Amino acid sequence: MSVVLPILRALRDDGPVSRAELGDRLGLTRPRLTSEVGRLVKAGFIAEAGMAASRGGRRSTLVELHPRLRFAAVDLGADSIDVEVVNGRMETIAAYREAADIRKGPKAILHRVSELLAKARVEGAHDRLDGVGIGVPGPVSFRDGVPVSPPIMPGWDRYPVRELLAREHGCPVVVDNDVNIMAVGERHGGVARSVDDFLFVKIGTGIGCGIHLSGDVYRGVDGCAGDIGHIQVDANGPVCSCGNTGCLEAVFSGAALARDALAAARSGASPALAERLGRSRVLTAKDVADGAAEGDVVCIRLIREGGRRLGGVLAALVSFANPSMIVIGGGLAQLGHVLLAEIRSVVYRRSLPLATGNLPVVLSELSGRAGVTGAAVLASDAAFEQVP
Amino acid sequence: MSVVLPILRALRDDGPVSRAELGDRLGLTRPRLTSEVGRLVKAGFIAEAGMAASRGGRRSTLVELHPRLRFAAVDLGADSIDVEVVNGRMETIAAYREAADIRKGPKAILHRVSELLAKARVEGAHDRLDGVGIGVPGPVSFRDGVPVSPPIMPGWDRYPVRELLAREHGCPVVVDNDVNIMAVGERHGGVARSVDDFLFVKIGTGIGCGIHLSGDVYRGVDGCAGDIGHIQVDANGPVCSCGNTGCLEAVFSGAALARDALAAARSGASPALAERLGRSRVLTAKDVADGAAEGDVVCIRLIREGGRRLGGVLAALVSFANPSMIVIGGGLAQLGHVLLAEIRSVVYRRSLPLATGNLPVVLSELSGRAGVTGAAVLASDAAFEQVP
Repeated sequence: MSVVLPILRALRDDGPVSRAELGDRLGLTRPRLTSEVGRLVKAGFIAEAGMAASRGGRRSTLVELHPRLRFAAVDLGADSIDVEVVNGRMETIAAYREAADIRKGPKAILHRVSELLAKARVEGAHDRLDGVGIGVPGPVSFRDGVPVSPPIMPGWDRYPVRELLAREHGCPVVVDNDVNIMAVGERHGGVARSVDDFLFVKIGTGIGCGIHLSGDVYRGVDGCAGDIGHIQVDANGPVCSCGNTGCLEAVFSGAALARDALAAARSGASPALAERLGRSRVLTAKDVADGAAEGDVVCIRLIREGGRRLGGVLAALVSFANPSMIVIGGGLAQLGHVLLAEIRSVVYRRSLPLATGNLPVVLSELSGRAGVTGAAVLASDAAFEQVP
Repeated sequence: MSVVLPILRALRDDGPVSRAELGDRLGLTRPRLTSEVGRLVKAGFIAEAGMAASRGGRRSTLVELHPRLRFAAVDLGADSIDVEVVNGRMETIAAYREAADIRKGPKAILHRVSELLAKARVEGAHDRLDGVGIGVPGPVSFRDGVPVSPPIMPGWDRYPVRELLAREHGCPVVVDNDVNIMAVGERHGGVARSVDDFLFVKIGTGIGCGIHLSGDVYRGVDGCAGDIGHIQVDANGPVCSCGNTGCLEAVFSGAALARDALAAARSGASPALAERLGRSRVLTAKDVADGAAEGDVVCIRLIREGGRRLGGVLAALVSFANPSMIVIGGGLAQLGHVLLAEIRSVVYRRSLPLATGNLPVVLSELSGRAGVTGAAVLASDAAFEQVP
């Protein structure tokens, strides 16, 4: 079993360490460690970084990931592009964020990604890339590196995203869906740091779930695990974009909340929403959050009813998967503690006590940066796995 | 990374193979293979078994698991004890099945298990055991080898089952819940043979789910993953034994079906059930299955409504976990194809097409023997893992 991956991950996640400590942590004999470190130095992945403080015997040299390592992290949203270039420690060297409609199709969008990465190069953020990670807002065949029948991404079905980027940059490329990369990001630098089994629930325009089991993303047989937005929660509910009725995301999501808020504003049921609609002519989740903060009862009710529906689904998933944490992220996480309180109340009431005895249900800490962080981590993993 | 486990598992699952083929399959160099096989021969786990047919070069010797290996498999039900002694190939050497009430408590039940294993020894089935696997009808801390708050097993909470059996037999012991061992059994010798990601749904007195992911049982953080019987399916449904309302197993399970059948017999709605109740004074799932086979509409309706409820939960789990197969087992699997058709119809209608495009929903092939088979496999795994 290769120890290359554990060595590189340890240096990425925890920074420079002495050779002695690295050997202890990974249970490697001194000759084995010397040979592996030598190989990684030669391959340009790690570098010496001075002497460590003495542990009582001979002083040991520090090693770290090579300072010239660079990874690109790309998070494509329905209407945004986020691109970052990071170093081996996953520290941001350059970051660009701009609006872009994913429906423009893969050629236009990926061309813009290339332009941003070229700009980063001109600005000195990298000479060449060692790995690229990219998240897209739809189902992905992780094995093939292509989107698969993504509902909101016309023109992207089986488009060879990985192949094209790999050819362009001459490095390993990972393509995954947006929720999986957010889960990876939250585990690397957020509230789920070092948690092996957790669910990351993204509530945005739609609803999806990143599943982290035994320390890895679980993607299912066809790569579509975590598609919880289309679980039926109300047999008599509204028709969903998928054609079924009463799906979770038809009942509660950014789109559903905007629809319900509009109805409440127009009917006059909610003065707070009516006033906002008059001002800005559109309503979003933020208006509902603000209305609730002002004490508007309809806004509070909309959030609590949504939380109850989502909580029912999460209670079922807790009974099934017995995770150690649930993280709530995505745009609707801004609904904050009213939403969280309702979700918790349902999950704690409906699931087995053994499974909820020590189950935090918490908001994402990284919010908008969860995606790029996870994409960078996956990019580095892919590069580390290809070290000869 | 040790190759002991892969070698022993290959010999257990596929029988005698030549050294050459074993080396090829596991990607081992000849010197490495020779050294590992030598070590396992010395440890008494494998034996030479003659010469293999020539593959063109020098003939290679066959190796097999040592013929004297013996494992005990115990499947405790709510009202039954199943004990088998098997050899390294998981072939039955002796089998005993008898009625026993699990509520008699761990001392009485485990004493009877010991008596049956002593009987097997007297009858020549084994000299000593190399591993014991035991399944119990309730939640188990797999790590600690103890049942945890098992609702139908008074006196068993945290009873040191593994420790006692290990001391008595001087070999590794594995304790798991009944649904997990059934899933393992079905994967070893049933319809899920070689399937890495599948759900085994047991519908008996209650309902539970064994989860097999990436080739292994997934038990969750507290060991209670798969507890799907208490997922709410009807907010206005009957009160469940757990205190909540409308749980899946309060709506559809052996106990729920017996309750509904009794009501239908007494009200006169079902002539077939009324006639059976008059004859035998109790009604079980078998009566409902027989009534349905005769065309009794109430019996057919009971099965279809149950299938619809279970199907709804399974559709949600398919969206979440994207498995490659669902296996239906346990006593109510005898409801057969009426049940299966209803479950399939709901799952295929409600889940994402990508997840159901190639998703068989099938009945268990091992039925009553799934549990002991899985217990034997886990016992052998535990023994193999402890080879020095």
